[in-house]
Amino acid sequence: MRMAELSSESGVPVATIKYYLREGLLPPGERTSPNQARYGEHHVRRLKLVRALLDIGGLTIAAVRDVLEAIDDDSSTYRVLGTAQHGLPAPKTPVDGEARAWALAKIEPVARERGWRLKPGDPVHEALLGALAAFAEVERRELIDHLADYAELAERMAEVDLATVSGLSSAESVVEGAVIGTVLGDALFAAMRRLAQQKVSASRFTP
Amino acid sequence: MRMAELSSESGVPVATIKYYLREGLLPPGERTSPNQARYGEHHVRRLKLVRALLDIGGLTIAAVRDVLEAIDDDSSTYRVLGTAQHGLPAPKTPVDGEARAWALAKIEPVARERGWRLKPGDPVHEALLGALAAFAEVERRELIDHLADYAELAERMAEVDLATVSGLSSAESVVEGAVIGTVLGDALFAAMRRLAQQKVSASRFTP
Repeated sequence: MRMAELSSESGVPVATIKYYLREGLLPPGERTSPNQARYGEHHVRRLKLVRALLDIGGLTIAAVRDVLEAIDDDSSTYRVLGTAQHGLPAPKTPVDGEARAWALAKIEPVARERGWRLKPGDPVHEALLGALAAFAEVERRELIDHLADYAELAERMAEVDLATVSGLSSAESVVEGAVIGTVLGDALFAAMRRLAQQKVSASRFTP
Repeated sequence: MRMAELSSESGVPVATIKYYLREGLLPPGERTSPNQARYGEHHVRRLKLVRALLDIGGLTIAAVRDVLEAIDDDSSTYRVLGTAQHGLPAPKTPVDGEARAWALAKIEPVARERGWRLKPGDPVHEALLGALAAFAEVERRELIDHLADYAELAERMAEVDLATVSGLSSAESVVEGAVIGTVLGDALFAAMRRLAQQKVSASRFTP
C-alpha cells in the first residue's frame, strides 16, 4: 500500500508517519520509484504499537526506540523477562554521593530478602535508585517506609507476568509479548491502583 | 533569594526556571524591582518536586501542572486517596465504539468482584479503558488474560498506600504525600517489577 493508505489503515496522519520514519520508529517501505514506497501489514501493526507505547505507555520517542529494538532482537527468548527492562524513565543525571548511598541502604536489605540481584550500571538498577532518590530529593522519605511490602507485590506481579508469557503459543513472539505486556501493563496497573485507592479510601474514611 | 541563587540551591538552570514560571509550574517570586524578584525556600522545594515528577515520574508538563493543582487544593483530605488520580497518561482520543465495549466487558466483572466503582468520564476510568483498549489495538488481547490477578495486586497496593498515608503526622500534607507517593511510586514499582521479573525468569529458565 502507499503512504496515504497506510495512514488511513492505521489512523496515523501522514506527517506523523514521516516523522516516525525519520526517527527510526518505523522501517522504510520498499522503494518503487524515486519518491514513492510501498508499505505492508507489518507497517500498520508497527504504527499501532508505536502509538500505544507513546500515548498509553507514556514513553518518550527514545524509550519507544529502545523498546522496539528489544522486540526486534528476538535472540534472547531464554531469559525473556530478563530483557523486559525497557521503557523506564532513566534519571537525567546519575544518582551519586549521599543520595546514592541512601537509596542503596534502602533497597539492599529488601533485595537480599527477595533474592533480587542488584547490578550497578544496569538500566533497571539505575532507574530504581533514581526513583528511590527522588523521594529523598523532595524530602518525603517516609513515603517508602513500606518498601518491603511493595517489593513483595512486585514479585507476585512478576510471577503473574511469567504465567502470562508461559501461556503464549510458540508461534507468537514471546519477547514482544513480554515487552508490550510490561510497558502497557505499567499503565494499566497504575490506573487500577488509583481505582482501588478510591475504594479503599472511601471504605475507611466514609463516616 | 534571587533567581541565580534559586538556581544554584535547586540545581535547576536559570533558563529552565524561567520556562517553569511561564508554564505556571512555579509560583512567581515577590517582585522587588521591575526586573527582579525574590524567591523563598518554598520555591526550592517546589522546583525539586517538579524535577522529580518530570524526570522520575515521566510526566508531561501538563500532567505535572495537574498534579501540582491537586497538591495545592488541600481541601479534600477526607477522601485523600480518592484524589490521587493524577499523572496518568490520558488516551489522546476517547476510547469509543467496539474498543470501548471490549474494554468494558473486560473490566466490569473484575470491578464487580472487587467492589470498585466505574465512573464513565472520570479520568481514572478513561485512562483504564485506554490502557485496556491498547492491548486490543496492538492485537495482544491474550496479555491481559490474568486481569483479575493484577486487580487483586492493585488493591493490595492501595491498602499499603493507605497505611503509608495514615502514618503521616497531621503536620505534614497528607494530600501531597498521597499524590507524590502515587506518582513516584508508579516509577519505583515499575523498576521493582522488572528486577523481580529478572529473578523469577532466571529461576524458572536457568537450566
